[in-house]
Amino acid sequence: MNPVLVNVLRGGAVESFHRGALAIVDADGAVHTTLGDVDRPVFPRSAVKALQALPLVASGAAEHFGLSDEQIALACASHRGEPLHAATAAAMLARAGLGESALECGTHWPYDEAASRQLARQRKGPGALHNNCSGKHAGFVCVGCLMALQAGREPAEFVRGYVQPGHPVMREISAALQAATGCDLASAPMGTDGCSIPTFGIPLRQLARGFARFGSGHGLSPTHAAATRRLRQAVAQAPFMVAGTGRFDTRVMQHFGERVFCKVGAEGVYCAALPTRGLGVAIKIDDGQGARAAEVVMAAVIRALAQRDEADAAVLRELVNVPLRNWNGIEVGAIAPAEGLRALS
Amino acid sequence: MNPVLVNVLRGGAVESFHRGALAIVDADGAVHTTLGDVDRPVFPRSAVKALQALPLVASGAAEHFGLSDEQIALACASHRGEPLHAATAAAMLARAGLGESALECGTHWPYDEAASRQLARQRKGPGALHNNCSGKHAGFVCVGCLMALQAGREPAEFVRGYVQPGHPVMREISAALQAATGCDLASAPMGTDGCSIPTFGIPLRQLARGFARFGSGHGLSPTHAAATRRLRQAVAQAPFMVAGTGRFDTRVMQHFGERVFCKVGAEGVYCAALPTRGLGVAIKIDDGQGARAAEVVMAAVIRALAQRDEADAAVLRELVNVPLRNWNGIEVGAIAPAEGLRALS
Repeated sequence: MNPVLVNVLRGGAVESFHRGALAIVDADGAVHTTLGDVDRPVFPRSAVKALQALPLVASGAAEHFGLSDEQIALACASHRGEPLHAATAAAMLARAGLGESALECGTHWPYDEAASRQLARQRKGPGALHNNCSGKHAGFVCVGCLMALQAGREPAEFVRGYVQPGHPVMREISAALQAATGCDLASAPMGTDGCSIPTFGIPLRQLARGFARFGSGHGLSPTHAAATRRLRQAVAQAPFMVAGTGRFDTRVMQHFGERVFCKVGAEGVYCAALPTRGLGVAIKIDDGQGARAAEVVMAAVIRALAQRDEADAAVLRELVNVPLRNWNGIEVGAIAPAEGLRALS
Repeated sequence: MNPVLVNVLRGGAVESFHRGALAIVDADGAVHTTLGDVDRPVFPRSAVKALQALPLVASGAAEHFGLSDEQIALACASHRGEPLHAATAAAMLARAGLGESALECGTHWPYDEAASRQLARQRKGPGALHNNCSGKHAGFVCVGCLMALQAGREPAEFVRGYVQPGHPVMREISAALQAATGCDLASAPMGTDGCSIPTFGIPLRQLARGFARFGSGHGLSPTHAAATRRLRQAVAQAPFMVAGTGRFDTRVMQHFGERVFCKVGAEGVYCAALPTRGLGVAIKIDDGQGARAAEVVMAAVIRALAQRDEADAAVLRELVNVPLRNWNGIEVGAIAPAEGLRALS
């Protein structure tokens, strides 16, 4: 039974509450904090995109195709489909000589409602570039195109089917995930993610260790360690690319820069690296719909472990205790840490 | 500790799960089934709109202003802001001689994304008529306008501030809610709802009794009992008005007609009346974000208690076990009843 980590308050009463688990460990797996069951396999979904982006840099594809910080950051993103996100994904594909049709992530309207309505106003519909995973997939396509060039194969033909578990590209991505987390993926539960690539059940303890390694390079191969530095620098330079206007990850990393790398995943998962502390963080909210709760837990973790001064505190204050306003702008409640998180403070 | 009622599966593994509580009782409060804590006060939010609509009929306002089935059904609705919803709310207000500016529910873009994009395509923005509560509020305005006429007061001036707990209109609404549920609202926790009216903490046991009464009239005053019949008939005639295209409540009531009245509320609440069984139902998913779970629980309840034949079964099948498809249309998992719901079958 996982503890209640976050309460949702209305009129002073607890209206709803979210249970979950949290692991904070170092790159050797030594525990800083665990709450709840951190050994149950959890599908990390998009929270591990940065680990899945390691081959983009480690293979030399990012350098070969001359990708910018913005483009490398987008490979780690669950973006909101804003115009700059879609354009950046298109530019990545163009660098590799391909177009939108190479993407196998599927199509959905931009998560950003203003961007969706802007498309509608222009009498346009969404394409695969607007899929929140288009940057990650464009990165996969770049990895595949370099593989094709090195093997003397036709790139468009070679990359086709890259979302399948047995494709050379996806084998490389899964190998990077396994190396970082230390989890044997061959024996892990496997599902299909929203964007059609495999997702593996990995315990929070090992996800957190993967992100401790991502934050320091410690425990990784030299090429992967170098890749983590490049990815962290790129994201710190272009945090808008990782999420979008007003989003938690963008807001936090715009302020903290390389001091915090954090990334949301679907179904209530959150991961982070705290390089100044040598720690990695992994969170899962049981109910999977508690993105609001996972954010509050992550904000509380950052406050406890990475907050340095009043400027940091000012950024975190409304992320740890989130005011809830209704359609008339009246403050009607809050999302706030519960007793179960007290161990952090 | 409430039981796990619903699992979310991916690749055969449990990815997320939702705990919650459920009460099924008759109009006298005799228990058919309870799961979890049904005595903790729960803010029912929009799930009690039908009870809050009792004064619209009982006061004579619906008859005085000649409201149609569609308009009466909209007074019980959390609609999706589709064009017909907004037009119907406007027509209700026009019947009472007022316009959109009388609404105090606030403004938001239609919940229905296609309707939102249609507005954007027309280079329009949303108004209070698109608020999911505009029909309920139009009903409140009608109640207030009749009160004003009866008191020789100017309607627009009289209704102003109707969302406040002490306004004559809201006192009448709260009295109806108290009469149906038997809950002393003066001593109940009180919060402010999304649309700015008060919401009261009421145990599931009493909410379920309120809906058993709503389904039979038993235990209510003769005018309220007559009003329940009018409301149930109107909703059965116009189930599109209560929710919208493809929504659970609309789908269920389009098929079941007067055999089932069900209504979603925010934060994982669901209520229903099952008149053929003389029972009322109230559900709360702990995490408040589990609308998907509350729907599965409600579908399982309807299957256990109101399913009569194969046609009923066909409608309920994909509501009890909901397939999850990703952006490429691949079936990746399901939302399904958990062990905790086995008592129902």
